[in-house]
Amino acid sequence: MTDVAPIEPTALIQEMGRRARAASAALALAPTATKATALRAAAQALRTHEAAVLAANREDMARGEANGLTGAMLDRLKLTPQRIEDIAAGLEAVAGLPDPVGEEIDRTRRPNGLVLSRVRVPLGVVGIIYESRPNVTADAGGLAMMAGNAAILRGGSEARASNGAIHVCLQQGLIQAGLPEDAIQLVPVSDRAAVGAMLGAAGLIDIIIPRGGKSLVARVQAEAKVPVLAHLDGIVHLYIDKAADPQMARDLALNAKMRRTGICGAMETLLIDRAFADSLPVLAAIADSGCELRGTDEVRAIEPRATPASAEDWDTEYLDAILSAKFVDGVDEAMTHIATHGSHHTDAIVTEDAATAERFLNQVDSAIVVWNASTQFADGGELGLGAEIGIATGRLHARGPVALEGLTTYKWLVKGTGQTRP
Amino acid sequence: MTDVAPIEPTALIQEMGRRARAASAALALAPTATKATALRAAAQALRTHEAAVLAANREDMARGEANGLTGAMLDRLKLTPQRIEDIAAGLEAVAGLPDPVGEEIDRTRRPNGLVLSRVRVPLGVVGIIYESRPNVTADAGGLAMMAGNAAILRGGSEARASNGAIHVCLQQGLIQAGLPEDAIQLVPVSDRAAVGAMLGAAGLIDIIIPRGGKSLVARVQAEAKVPVLAHLDGIVHLYIDKAADPQMARDLALNAKMRRTGICGAMETLLIDRAFADSLPVLAAIADSGCELRGTDEVRAIEPRATPASAEDWDTEYLDAILSAKFVDGVDEAMTHIATHGSHHTDAIVTEDAATAERFLNQVDSAIVVWNASTQFADGGELGLGAEIGIATGRLHARGPVALEGLTTYKWLVKGTGQTRP
Repeated sequence: MTDVAPIEPTALIQEMGRRARAASAALALAPTATKATALRAAAQALRTHEAAVLAANREDMARGEANGLTGAMLDRLKLTPQRIEDIAAGLEAVAGLPDPVGEEIDRTRRPNGLVLSRVRVPLGVVGIIYESRPNVTADAGGLAMMAGNAAILRGGSEARASNGAIHVCLQQGLIQAGLPEDAIQLVPVSDRAAVGAMLGAAGLIDIIIPRGGKSLVARVQAEAKVPVLAHLDGIVHLYIDKAADPQMARDLALNAKMRRTGICGAMETLLIDRAFADSLPVLAAIADSGCELRGTDEVRAIEPRATPASAEDWDTEYLDAILSAKFVDGVDEAMTHIATHGSHHTDAIVTEDAATAERFLNQVDSAIVVWNASTQFADGGELGLGAEIGIATGRLHARGPVALEGLTTYKWLVKGTGQTRP
Repeated sequence: MTDVAPIEPTALIQEMGRRARAASAALALAPTATKATALRAAAQALRTHEAAVLAANREDMARGEANGLTGAMLDRLKLTPQRIEDIAAGLEAVAGLPDPVGEEIDRTRRPNGLVLSRVRVPLGVVGIIYESRPNVTADAGGLAMMAGNAAILRGGSEARASNGAIHVCLQQGLIQAGLPEDAIQLVPVSDRAAVGAMLGAAGLIDIIIPRGGKSLVARVQAEAKVPVLAHLDGIVHLYIDKAADPQMARDLALNAKMRRTGICGAMETLLIDRAFADSLPVLAAIADSGCELRGTDEVRAIEPRATPASAEDWDTEYLDAILSAKFVDGVDEAMTHIATHGSHHTDAIVTEDAATAERFLNQVDSAIVVWNASTQFADGGELGLGAEIGIATGRLHARGPVALEGLTTYKWLVKGTGQTRP
């Protein structure tokens, strides 16, 4: 697959946006079963066309290897029969989720007899800008569509053949369900100007969701004229309170850091009450696990394998087997550290003291605040949403993991019997 | 009152933003009763200092007259003992509203025993930019504070003495309740650069709410790097279906247009099913009421007092005793007209046919959709919110009238007993 002939990106995105808006009107009224049919048919198309998807992916992989992509990037790009099956199963799982569209949020009757309700409706047109993982084409496009939205997808150039092949399957699903093909569109050019055109498409695109590395998210947040749901950093803290169960603290710290080090819910900084300075085995356990430990002098005195932490360490999301650690004087100093260095993503406390936990849960200003559990539960699936299109650390609209409900808004319905306002 | 010595506006707003952020941390944890005490004490201070507020207002009025403000602008600016009492009573009404902060939106228990809940928390720092009505100082500042937010208020220069005097009363209320004075700050300079600094204060101000004319709102929407809740236009339609009760249609049209012509929920365009071309008395009633009628040739053939409507009329928010009118072939053409010319604010249908009404309620993509009632109910008080800080026609966060709940966000609380993620 080669790019189509050069098109002026702004004109291209405007035309795609107009088609998306038209499609979104049909999507907004589509019954749940129709949308689910489209997703299940798309899943089936992915299985049927597995060979074509794998062939397209081999083309991307060969070009990526020739272009010197790192091993981690190639791994994100690579599709296998298992990964294609996972994508298909993911579409089927979304098809089975409760449809938020049409849900009545509340209903009241006014003294004058007016009946008021707020009812969930789709957001409209969702733009998704992502990098090398081709599964996002199906995951994000499918989730946006299931919430009744039209989606405009702009994947990374390194995955363009794979994205195109997956997109064909999504469109087959839409056609089979009788929904407009334009409900899920893939930007056919991979130059960065198309991203700029999407970010400037206020009025055509209702929300932009970036999925990728920090430089992509930072660019989107800086340039977008369209509202953005995203998180830039996940500087995740675990605080071990003096009233923590030591064994639980050790287990949670190891899981929060080492289960997977590259996800946004992975712990990056460990804060330990100074009461534990002599007795807690957690630092040794972290070092034993193969994690690089960077700490204050106090930490290094207890765990000699730790190297000195610099000032930047407290503001760094490693996304790797590296942990910064320090001792604090109780929950207040921990919360001050989190307020100063955190990223409003996910922060946790380990304590058996319910009053201390309540203070932490109330005062820490993060999208997800955790008591006595691993920070790696910061995920839409784990938090019961069935899926996620991303995690938002902004304060407006949706916060934390965003799935179907976060991809909707609401309108007010006012039903009367001829009431005039006095 | 004179402006303070020139301060670089960006530095000023950044300093105010930092102080607001610090105050917002205390506000977020303030009990409902404390916030209510502050509002009631502020109301009492307004009554106690009525003479001082009126004196400040006379200063603004004299300057406004000298500067040639229009009669309408002077009326918006003017305070009277009754208007001051209304402002005080408004603060007391907000003090009695249910506090959304801390409300549990939902709660689930996962199979692994984790208990998840979403709990409402304040947005943080709310910026309010408004024009000549000094009551906004108290109305908006009080509502933002009751929802646990710090507020940065930037009123119009023509009302600066009045705003300053009202602000002193708000701060007295805060002090009496033991809350930080910085919870409600008034920008002490009236140059437009302060507005620009607020619009650029991403990270310091969490949301901007403009209250004023179209040019203010348009500037805020175009320039803001901070999320905005607002509506630019209220091009409000009333569609009289062929199954409408003619008497109800006439009453609703008259009320929707003429009760108050200058509010955003006032009807601007009347759409009538062609089935009524010969028989509906509504056009004559509108003309009789003193409203200027602009219509198509069909309308003019029936109501000779109508003047010809131009193409721009269908896209115009008159905010005056002027109405555009046309006939349509049924609800579908009405909905197409609304989709083409509407502003996603408030649109209404008059019909006795429930199926037609349901189609209209479902398909019309406006913040407020009304069946058999006046469009002038588009108001936070009338829709049961007890107050409003504005009406939003955007799609994100809050839609329609925005009051206490719309000034909050939520966070996820995850409570475990040591769960690690497998």
